[in-house]
Amino acid sequence: MTDREPAIVCPAPLRDYPHIVMAHGGGGALTRDLITNIFEPAFHNRYLSQMHDGATFRVTTDQMAFTTDNYVVSPLFFPGGDIGTLAVCGTVNDLAMCGARPLYLSAGFVIEEGLPMETLIRTAQSMGEAAARANVQIVTGDIKVVDRGKGDGLYINTSGVGAVISHAPIGPDQVRPGDAIVISGDIGRHGVTVLAEREGLSFESAVESDVQPVADPVLTMLEEGIALHCLRDLTRGGLATALIEIAEQAGHDVEMDEMAVPVAETVRGASEILGLDPLYIANEGCFVAFVPEREAAAVLNVLNRADGCFAPSVIGRVAAGSGQVSAVSPIGGRRALDLLSGEQMPRIC
Amino acid sequence: MTDREPAIVCPAPLRDYPHIVMAHGGGGALTRDLITNIFEPAFHNRYLSQMHDGATFRVTTDQMAFTTDNYVVSPLFFPGGDIGTLAVCGTVNDLAMCGARPLYLSAGFVIEEGLPMETLIRTAQSMGEAAARANVQIVTGDIKVVDRGKGDGLYINTSGVGAVISHAPIGPDQVRPGDAIVISGDIGRHGVTVLAEREGLSFESAVESDVQPVADPVLTMLEEGIALHCLRDLTRGGLATALIEIAEQAGHDVEMDEMAVPVAETVRGASEILGLDPLYIANEGCFVAFVPEREAAAVLNVLNRADGCFAPSVIGRVAAGSGQVSAVSPIGGRRALDLLSGEQMPRIC
Repeated sequence: MTDREPAIVCPAPLRDYPHIVMAHGGGGALTRDLITNIFEPAFHNRYLSQMHDGATFRVTTDQMAFTTDNYVVSPLFFPGGDIGTLAVCGTVNDLAMCGARPLYLSAGFVIEEGLPMETLIRTAQSMGEAAARANVQIVTGDIKVVDRGKGDGLYINTSGVGAVISHAPIGPDQVRPGDAIVISGDIGRHGVTVLAEREGLSFESAVESDVQPVADPVLTMLEEGIALHCLRDLTRGGLATALIEIAEQAGHDVEMDEMAVPVAETVRGASEILGLDPLYIANEGCFVAFVPEREAAAVLNVLNRADGCFAPSVIGRVAAGSGQVSAVSPIGGRRALDLLSGEQMPRIC
Repeated sequence: MTDREPAIVCPAPLRDYPHIVMAHGGGGALTRDLITNIFEPAFHNRYLSQMHDGATFRVTTDQMAFTTDNYVVSPLFFPGGDIGTLAVCGTVNDLAMCGARPLYLSAGFVIEEGLPMETLIRTAQSMGEAAARANVQIVTGDIKVVDRGKGDGLYINTSGVGAVISHAPIGPDQVRPGDAIVISGDIGRHGVTVLAEREGLSFESAVESDVQPVADPVLTMLEEGIALHCLRDLTRGGLATALIEIAEQAGHDVEMDEMAVPVAETVRGASEILGLDPLYIANEGCFVAFVPEREAAAVLNVLNRADGCFAPSVIGRVAAGSGQVSAVSPIGGRRALDLLSGEQMPRIC
């Protein structure tokens, strides 16, 4: 959703409350109104309607993945998505990075008193749509309301469980010298979009967040038997931070070819105006795969067929060394990449 | 921890930062400092140190439970516990209420810029201690920092997964007319403690929160083969709300004997001063079990042996009806119990 949509019609039982009040978080009748009229319709599945302290489900795997993320993005809505889309895709993608098929999500809401009811409804609908797209179910949840001035509208936590389908372990410790590093698509769109929205900037060509679930191409690679040594989505801290962390944990060097990293022209221009380095900008629908060099073509083949992966590319390789990351610049120079102490922009996801 | 302990010694790499700054949530070097120096030592386990996008673990059951809760309690520290204890016990207890052995927790932190580092350290230590006591591991996590004035110090989400060990389903739909309702201990301590702390009140006899994990007695009952129809911990909304929700979902009436509900004298007195009805006060270490009448004695037997369950009692029974809850008062009158629209007190858990 790139623009403000027409006002959503508030379900009848909520009409007396155009804004969230403290009692909506009290666990009583008003909390139940939110569950019954907003969350159950948006997330509908048989687990959620058990209305118990948790959800129970059958397990048909012997290895599971479990992950969690808080979403505190500001603003809540931005071109290409919103906090709800982000909260589902981010956690789905973290499960995929563990080599797991995402199955079930939890959703925990910390709502600031005074939040327009319409904002909560739109967010829940976005979450439901993103969950359907990612083929996961939101099976358990929690709602708390905090006093006005003690939040920023809405914070969401999603946690997720998935079935590990990779037969071999996936992680930084599996990375080997000689591995090729493949990126699933162009970088920088999410961070630039959110920051531009926050600052009220617009560019000649519209930039949209890349927020999307990326589990499908990962599962396809696993099903095709491609050996994946390490996967990492390029969220907070961007590509550079991901490579630095992996190189350090692997204890091998990473040589990145800066020319090979796909960046859309609009994003490159916007980054310059905003004073950001695309390598450190957060993405929400983009990942790197470390694979034996012989597998690189097969990985590209999968990524080129996948929805939403623009310009997947081999961007570097792993070399014997001590865990350093270097970038070869367009003019042939080589610079070492380091962790930023913080981040170029806060509240991005 | 009932009183302010001596200042905790800040690990050396954090000493330049007596307070949380935005960059601690940036995903870069400062975020890693928190993980390495606070969370890994407090939660130490081999899963967390995988430092991947999620944790993976072996599964040896065919039925799992999954639950989530946000903790937004104010104040963060109170007699008998703190937000960290609460965040672990609350989620552990929700898993137990599903008839599951709690196994793994996630921890998501939303920290307000400016939070004293010492507060975060104490909280992490409390979480680690509570996890050890409850025999669970905190295996994955996330840290976000929000701007000053956009939080209230610290919000925590914990989600949990557990192995369902109950052979029969447990839930409101299993409740049958004739079932006995057993309470695991006395009510009202948590809510009264937090509210008194918030208002700066003190009473002649100290009141402490009942926050504790209750998985052990539940697992013992299951292992002893006691038929459990429904379990519910008496958190937000207290005993009355739990009974009302269960009666309604079960479609049977609940007759509660108000005289039989254990309430400590100090709690009764404090509730009167604070203008609260103990039946609606939140608890954090107390639950009800709906069981066939013939099992009531066996349930009491387990609860009487359990740590931290004071005065477990049969407090009522289920009768054929349409989902109403009535309380028989000490003088023999009968009143219907209804959901409060909100809650007697906000920000209690």
